[in-house]
Amino acid sequence: MTITQLRKPHERLAEACADEMNAVNALIRTRMASEHAPRIPEVTAHLVEAGGKRVRPLLTVACAKLFGYSGEDHVKLAATVEFIHTATLLHDDVVDESEQRRGRPTANLLWDNQSSVLVGDYLFARSFQLMVETGSLRVLDILSGAAATIAEGEVLQLTAARNLATTEATYLQIVRGKTAALFEAAAKVGGVVAAASEDEVRALSEFGDALGVSFQIVDDWLDYGGAGDGIGKNLGDDFREGKLTLPVIRALARGDEAERAFWREALERGRSDDFDRARAIVERHGTLEEARQEALAWRDRAVAALSRLPAGDLRDMLSDLADYVVARAE
Amino acid sequence: MTITQLRKPHERLAEACADEMNAVNALIRTRMASEHAPRIPEVTAHLVEAGGKRVRPLLTVACAKLFGYSGEDHVKLAATVEFIHTATLLHDDVVDESEQRRGRPTANLLWDNQSSVLVGDYLFARSFQLMVETGSLRVLDILSGAAATIAEGEVLQLTAARNLATTEATYLQIVRGKTAALFEAAAKVGGVVAAASEDEVRALSEFGDALGVSFQIVDDWLDYGGAGDGIGKNLGDDFREGKLTLPVIRALARGDEAERAFWREALERGRSDDFDRARAIVERHGTLEEARQEALAWRDRAVAALSRLPAGDLRDMLSDLADYVVARAE
Repeated sequence: MTITQLRKPHERLAEACADEMNAVNALIRTRMASEHAPRIPEVTAHLVEAGGKRVRPLLTVACAKLFGYSGEDHVKLAATVEFIHTATLLHDDVVDESEQRRGRPTANLLWDNQSSVLVGDYLFARSFQLMVETGSLRVLDILSGAAATIAEGEVLQLTAARNLATTEATYLQIVRGKTAALFEAAAKVGGVVAAASEDEVRALSEFGDALGVSFQIVDDWLDYGGAGDGIGKNLGDDFREGKLTLPVIRALARGDEAERAFWREALERGRSDDFDRARAIVERHGTLEEARQEALAWRDRAVAALSRLPAGDLRDMLSDLADYVVARAE
Repeated sequence: MTITQLRKPHERLAEACADEMNAVNALIRTRMASEHAPRIPEVTAHLVEAGGKRVRPLLTVACAKLFGYSGEDHVKLAATVEFIHTATLLHDDVVDESEQRRGRPTANLLWDNQSSVLVGDYLFARSFQLMVETGSLRVLDILSGAAATIAEGEVLQLTAARNLATTEATYLQIVRGKTAALFEAAAKVGGVVAAASEDEVRALSEFGDALGVSFQIVDDWLDYGGAGDGIGKNLGDDFREGKLTLPVIRALARGDEAERAFWREALERGRSDDFDRARAIVERHGTLEEARQEALAWRDRAVAALSRLPAGDLRDMLSDLADYVVARAE
């Protein structure tokens, strides 16, 4: 096994797309500037330079390169996707009253909620300007639709929080909105600008969607099953915020009255000091492991969709990425 | 003088564009729906149905009709413009911690800040979907640029608040961002979809910009010179929020040390209980009246731009609208 193979898949993807990703990063820096309001690049840089993995823009670039694309629109669209993502992070941290993101204090803590809301709005607007520059109405349709699905998913998550009646179907809808919609659009627009066939565009769409769903289920798994790895997310955050994720929804359905009373107190009424008990319950019912299995099934779907795309190193790395995403839960 | 002439200009414009405005309102209702998140139409309806004057969508419809436009894109763009406006109101009320808007409690008060942020994001996304449907890249360029200018202006306003060094140039930049950019884009896209000539599109742009600037200067004037008319804005709101508007910026430049100390205490440190003194100062220096004169000068520019557009009833009503906007300050 060579050193290259020991690297993480997103790192190898970034290496394979190094020229494009350098161009993406340069474009992000140029476009986050503001002639009149220095607060904008300050807040944006804090988040953009905190070292996110850039998975979404990587998807766009790699999915265009899969088809030998050699223009510049994939770079613009990758920056677009990262701007949309950054804007949603800024707004999420206000909504969740978060204090840490990517291991650093959040912008709402360092500056204020106002700056996070308005700089997020600015980045949304800039993302639309960037995508308009590609001149592709199909791309505009895909990305504006994704933006609507994201916001809808966030509102749904807000109203489903602390609601024990939340179903698995609602959970999946939230997951699609908060994560899979942008993964899907990121992959899809890469193929669209590269003039992939209709079946290939559908395959990219399925790949991105399934990758995003597995990614989010694993994220939710980590809140109960992870080790609190210091990357900015703590064990039990979702629990304390009253979010009903898959292990909880299933454990609730199988629990006895005492357990239901526990969840009601903890999630509905916010008396969430006994995270250990919550963890013990999802372990005992096996629903934490079931959630991991669900993530694996979505990983399989993502990999299956890849089989309809051009073979080669890039496709292999995308497949490894799908494995890596779920390997975080073990 | 007939009853028709006694009506306010925006009411007469709405009457002249009644079919289109009915279509705009129907489209707004359809598109603010959400299959999965009922919170979205609840929050939106609260604001949309509070009876705003719909000046911005009226501008779009009227400026397309000026050129005899008979398609449907002006209706879509009018709804787009109103969605952008509604989204900014939702976010503004969070940023300003407002409790009242259009004479009703704000959405952030009735629901919560989270809902206002996320529903605003949804409306932004929906507005982009709507404008994409027109298939006009020029329109997309104009409106995405306006959205960026709006957000930039809001950030600038945030960082200029409580800062006594704010210049008139910065004030004008803020006014352009928070108000004139959307007025300008609303008028301009009406002409663009109606295939107006380049000079006519420029005239629409100048008209919208000047109308927006005069509108905002008058709004700021009303905060010191108005009568507190119970339409949701109270005298002294800007003063208490530490906003440096035109009458204050000029009064500051001419005040003695005692006055400067007063403004510093009130605006920078937020000890703003003596609004009567603030009002007396801007009266005494004549800067309140100067601001009104500035608004009149911008009104004149708006009317001058109209002279390059097709003559007729609609143009006359747009001219009356420009008069009406400044007549609020008297």
